[in-house]
Amino acid sequence: MSTILESIEKESKINQHAYTIAGQLAELFSETAVERDKKGGTALHERNLIRKSGLLKMSVPKKYGGLENDWASILNIVRLFANVDGSIAHLFGYHHLIVASIELYGTPEQFARYSKKTAENNFFWGNALNPLDENTRVQIKNEKYKINGRKGFSSGSVDSDMLLVSAYNDQGKIVIGVTDSKRKGIKINGDWNNFGQRQTDSGTVEFTNVILEENEILKTPGPMGNLRSTLRSSLAQLILSHVYLGMAEGALQEAKNYTSAQTRPWINSGVKTSQEDPYILANYGEMWLSIQSAKLLLEQAVESFQQSWDVGEGITEKQRGKTALHIAAAKVQAARTGLFVANKMFEVTGARATSGAARLDRFWRNIRTHTLHDPVDYKIKELGDWALNDKIPAPGFYS
Amino acid sequence: MSTILESIEKESKINQHAYTIAGQLAELFSETAVERDKKGGTALHERNLIRKSGLLKMSVPKKYGGLENDWASILNIVRLFANVDGSIAHLFGYHHLIVASIELYGTPEQFARYSKKTAENNFFWGNALNPLDENTRVQIKNEKYKINGRKGFSSGSVDSDMLLVSAYNDQGKIVIGVTDSKRKGIKINGDWNNFGQRQTDSGTVEFTNVILEENEILKTPGPMGNLRSTLRSSLAQLILSHVYLGMAEGALQEAKNYTSAQTRPWINSGVKTSQEDPYILANYGEMWLSIQSAKLLLEQAVESFQQSWDVGEGITEKQRGKTALHIAAAKVQAARTGLFVANKMFEVTGARATSGAARLDRFWRNIRTHTLHDPVDYKIKELGDWALNDKIPAPGFYS
Amino acid sequence: MSTILESIEKESKINQHAYTIAGQLAELFSETAVERDKKGGTALHERNLIRKSGLLKMSVPKKYGGLENDWASILNIVRLFANVDGSIAHLFGYHHLIVASIELYGTPEQFARYSKKTAENNFFWGNALNPLDENTRVQIKNEKYKINGRKGFSSGSVDSDMLLVSAYNDQGKIVIGVTDSKRKGIKINGDWNNFGQRQTDSGTVEFTNVILEENEILKTPGPMGNLRSTLRSSLAQLILSHVYLGMAEGALQEAKNYTSAQTRPWINSGVKTSQEDPYILANYGEMWLSIQSAKLLLEQAVESFQQSWDVGEGITEKQRGKTALHIAAAKVQAARTGLFVANKMFEVTGARATSGAARLDRFWRNIRTHTLHDPVDYKIKELGDWALNDKIPAPGFYS
Amino acid sequence: MSTILESIEKESKINQHAYTIAGQLAELFSETAVERDKKGGTALHERNLIRKSGLLKMSVPKKYGGLENDWASILNIVRLFANVDGSIAHLFGYHHLIVASIELYGTPEQFARYSKKTAENNFFWGNALNPLDENTRVQIKNEKYKINGRKGFSSGSVDSDMLLVSAYNDQGKIVIGVTDSKRKGIKINGDWNNFGQRQTDSGTVEFTNVILEENEILKTPGPMGNLRSTLRSSLAQLILSHVYLGMAEGALQEAKNYTSAQTRPWINSGVKTSQEDPYILANYGEMWLSIQSAKLLLEQAVESFQQSWDVGEGITEKQRGKTALHIAAAKVQAARTGLFVANKMFEVTGARATSGAARLDRFWRNIRTHTLHDPVDYKIKELGDWALNDKIPAPGFYS
Repeated sequence: MSTILESIEKESKINQHAYTIAGQLAELFSETAVERDKKGGTALHERNLIRKSGLLKMSVPKKYGGLENDWASILNIVRLFANVDGSIAHLFGYHHLIVASIELYGTPEQFARYSKKTAENNFFWGNALNPLDENTRVQIKNEKYKINGRKGFSSGSVDSDMLLVSAYNDQGKIVIGVTDSKRKGIKINGDWNNFGQRQTDSGTVEFTNVILEENEILKTPGPMGNLRSTLRSSLAQLILSHVYLGMAEGALQEAKNYTSAQTRPWINSGVKTSQEDPYILANYGEMWLSIQSAKLLLEQAVESFQQSWDVGEGITEKQRGKTALHIAAAKVQAARTGLFVANKMFEVTGARATSGAARLDRFWRNIRTHTLHDPVDYKIKELGDWALNDKIPAPGFYS
Repeated sequence: MSTILESIEKESKINQHAYTIAGQLAELFSETAVERDKKGGTALHERNLIRKSGLLKMSVPKKYGGLENDWASILNIVRLFANVDGSIAHLFGYHHLIVASIELYGTPEQFARYSKKTAENNFFWGNALNPLDENTRVQIKNEKYKINGRKGFSSGSVDSDMLLVSAYNDQGKIVIGVTDSKRKGIKINGDWNNFGQRQTDSGTVEFTNVILEENEILKTPGPMGNLRSTLRSSLAQLILSHVYLGMAEGALQEAKNYTSAQTRPWINSGVKTSQEDPYILANYGEMWLSIQSAKLLLEQAVESFQQSWDVGEGITEKQRGKTALHIAAAKVQAARTGLFVANKMFEVTGARATSGAARLDRFWRNIRTHTLHDPVDYKIKELGDWALNDKIPAPGFYS
Repeated sequence: MSTILESIEKESKINQHAYTIAGQLAELFSETAVERDKKGGTALHERNLIRKSGLLKMSVPKKYGGLENDWASILNIVRLFANVDGSIAHLFGYHHLIVASIELYGTPEQFARYSKKTAENNFFWGNALNPLDENTRVQIKNEKYKINGRKGFSSGSVDSDMLLVSAYNDQGKIVIGVTDSKRKGIKINGDWNNFGQRQTDSGTVEFTNVILEENEILKTPGPMGNLRSTLRSSLAQLILSHVYLGMAEGALQEAKNYTSAQTRPWINSGVKTSQEDPYILANYGEMWLSIQSAKLLLEQAVESFQQSWDVGEGITEKQRGKTALHIAAAKVQAARTGLFVANKMFEVTGARATSGAARLDRFWRNIRTHTLHDPVDYKIKELGDWALNDKIPAPGFYS
Repeated sequence: MSTILESIEKESKINQHAYTIAGQLAELFSETAVERDKKGGTALHERNLIRKSGLLKMSVPKKYGGLENDWASILNIVRLFANVDGSIAHLFGYHHLIVASIELYGTPEQFARYSKKTAENNFFWGNALNPLDENTRVQIKNEKYKINGRKGFSSGSVDSDMLLVSAYNDQGKIVIGVTDSKRKGIKINGDWNNFGQRQTDSGTVEFTNVILEENEILKTPGPMGNLRSTLRSSLAQLILSHVYLGMAEGALQEAKNYTSAQTRPWINSGVKTSQEDPYILANYGEMWLSIQSAKLLLEQAVESFQQSWDVGEGITEKQRGKTALHIAAAKVQAARTGLFVANKMFEVTGARATSGAARLDRFWRNIRTHTLHDPVDYKIKELGDWALNDKIPAPGFYS
């Protein structure tokens, strides 16, 4: 793992303190990652370590008690965690996405309030925002918002302190609010048992007459309420992409360790060690190159995103569009790289690497699951619309 | 599944009786495949159903009480089983490989003896032959063969009635023998717990001073003892390839069911159903085409193998070489097709298809594991040596 | 080239007499192919050799003086010619397509009349049928059909004896007729100068008040007039695919000759000859495998087409659909194989193989040009519609 | 073309003056590129324009009368020229490679002398250095170096003012010298007529008793004489890669123009313009993404190279190795991107785009030819040796 840390250290402007802590956490996570992948469920111990680490405050401004790190720092830690544990990387990234969502969708007062709470209590946010889910409904009466319904893919809901919730009103418009996870009427089922990203707790949450107050609703500017607010979607895509790349790097590292230590040269290869095998070397070359491309595309995307973020309300459609393109390109490459490496790694390690104890298949299972968030084919189409028609992606929940 | 059965029915000369039975078995296997993939271990119930079905006699000559089916029939049933259960397909195929091994490596008397026993008792053979394992040794004294060592990848060893065993003698030459699975000194560990092909029982078998008699040793002509005997390797490769193709077809069928029944069109797709989505259609087209290529290459390979088989001792190097090439081509395509489909199937079904209950990842886990039997890269090299240098593959345990 | 001939000889049921002659012609064509690719224009000498050979009669029934060969024979000669000369292969294939078009679109009397003329005079037909061209119009008055317009992609128009012509009437319906190439008002421009398939004479033909008689119009059943008539499109696709495969085989053969005779091992390869280089071998393996897949898919398609052809008017939509699918699969594979081999061949031969004298780029130029006839992407979509939705391709001019 | 210029302008630190001139030159070159590709031979007019432009001095230090631009500036102009004319881009890049070769292989005095001459006279250097050519020999007597032999691939030899020449001495060691192109005994044949890069004049030069003086021999440190001198190979690879990327960008730009202006939607596409076709958009997306990856990898490589260059003699093996890896990665991606785009561009433009007048095949012919300089497969192997074994590429003439 040290080489990956080293590479991040050199190549990004990561906050050194946060980075050191994150490295230590990643080391700890790696020790139990195999076992926890098997068990699934909630990574309680690890989540508490993150709470204690203070890293949940990275996206909170200093004036509200946070670390106010730039996005490169946060995203590099997402990637670092993903080297050893895709689930925790996702939860960590989405926590910061939610903090950013409040900043982007809500009023400065709302952001101040929830930021402070986050920083003071090291709150871990869970996600119950899902624009594709039209079954959760909200009714508004006397400035009370009453939510009912059952929502899937609620990553990080179990053991969350706070939740970001979406629901559709009677006009078919999405409404997004903030709530304590323990509020009356909320039932977090903890029923995520998919084959990948097994400790993301992306299961269902049921809402039965859950009441949110007016000031808990993020409506100024609201979701997609102005151009700047649409950066929330960009950030979500950027986080996903860092998880993909991080997992790909982790897979390559595991493969490398395995080939070097255990893989025997093939009987007809004519070489003495697997490390000299021309086809094994070619496969490593392809994996490494694919990762390099993804890494550079991501670095470009992060820089572009940070610039778009930093201009604040003054962001133009063109700038937002360029950022969206950079992110789309990075995401496609990272997703493909992840799938490629997680599959190919076995051709350079051999049959024994399918051992149940090593659970090396977790990389493929995690990447395969996570890259289905939204279709890569439509990202490619967006790139094509730019390349051929000079059209930037229209802002949306997935773009 | 019916379409796959239908396709086999039409396109091969499969023994109709065996085929009907196999279809019924496959139907049964499919009902518990998901659960059994989870459990791993030994498919006792299913193995007994196969015993009762009489299909273990397909490779036994009529004069010894068998069905004497051609290889196309046997291999198509391997493929059919693999549509729903890659593990059972492998065990079933390898049983027949072992029957053929005795015919190819042993004397006519040995073949007669073991064939009859197989047919009379519906014996299920397990494999403890592994040319790459040099740790199992044999010492020969007074026409007794004493075997010691621990052997991995012993597919079908648990619950086997008989075992085919390999060991190296002091001259470094491989010796292959036949034994009752319960013979004194044999300990079948049942410790296979890899992530794929989980019910193949491909774990370790320990041999402690296990004694084989002279007439239990297959030494005339012996392993690779003459040109015809080397067809054993060809048959092994052919069986593997049918498992791959069968699994790929099964994966496509599951994907199709899922997309049709459950996948929603993507929000930006502009189409009303996922079945009209241009990219989903393109992905299905690619998967189908890849399977078609594999199917035709396999049909060519089976026909070529049957011809090589039928000429008996008179087989020439050229004919054997052509068969090896046909099999190598089919194997590469089947392996790649399997990996491609088992990975791509999720891009046409979507995130919900990663549900733990459906365990659709089993296709990838099974294919990924099974295609590591021996490296595809070296098969491609063999094809290249033919294409460029007109060299046919040299007979070997993997070629 | 001998190995390709040998392969066809063994594997198809080609008419032996026709095959021998075709082999001799191919030998002659190969001697001047490089020079003629450079010159472009009309292959007059070669066209006359074909006329003299009698092979233009292969698709004509015996009762009309023809050879009445099956489609496999004709298509294998298309493929054989394409090994050395893609242009001539195309012209030869399209000649037979036109003969078949008259049988499919016209009355038995019309087919009898034009078949006899073809056989008696060894007529070489040229194509001026193009369903995408809406600029050529026909006006009908007093049972005279008056054609005006300018038509592109009129393959084989120069030096043709007869032409098949399409035009749209005032109702927007396509009308197809037959005419002597020298009829008054026809101007064949001979202006094809594209970068590939340079001797196909696929340039423009101008029609100025060209009069066709009622009995020269193929209107019973007419183009796409009944289900059987739609096989014309299937045959067109099948001919194109044989040209692609033949060109791919020719490219591989040239590459093989070159590598064996001239390519030096790379300085860091550690091998003594390029023929042992692991990457060169892998590349040859990939090219050969791709060709094998295309070959088998084409053989299946030809058999399927012949069956559809042989049932005559009784053909069902299902049978026609299955044939269309088989052809679509073969076409996609053949097109991709052609492009792959024609590009990759240089990586196994090296920089010197770009010599202007050898003109080895002609394979890529020819295949690239010819595979643009209609988009491969939409063929893949057709395959997907079958794989996912069980829909057979709807008959059309390109399907 | 303007978009490409714009992109360079924004994204690199190119010398503005040089850049403006280069843009104007590129505009001029583009006007005749098609015609000159047809003619082949020497681009005399264009070479003189470059001479006049002063851009041949970009790599010459200010103290010797040059512009002393950084490598990013020079390489971006290589790329810019390659957008419209791969041959001129190569000649321009190799000119600067030779200037750098003198700096790296020779003494400071030699570099001063030849730099000044270059700047004063706007000399255009030609290349007769080819490490793979062992037929050119040098004999040394009385401090005179006598060269005999015939050398191929001598890019830019025709119309060159000066030549860099390699020859092997009797000890099998390579000797590199500098000579006026018109020196007695030098015969520049101008016989390059390959299918791609047709105006690079990469033909043969014959040496008959050509005498070089001691001070014309670059022997301190000499070729590969110390670590810094081996950067010559890195620079050569970097120049090639910029030519590849530039050609790929040019191909995409031409395709875009064509699709937008001329390509009709496919009849079964269901869309009104080709610009909305989902498969055309996907193809554009893929091409653009591939170019983006290449671009970022190249930018990283240039930065890495400049750093390695700037440290001078103090360069370490590790730094040199990292630069070599960055360049190798960029080169593989640029080469593949070039081949991919130059081939795929026709699938988004259609059959009419094969017109002989447009000569759009020149992109493929140029890229296919140029990417054969040294095998991409061995670059991938180098990347693999790093990824698996932490081995940096050993310095050599191609690494």
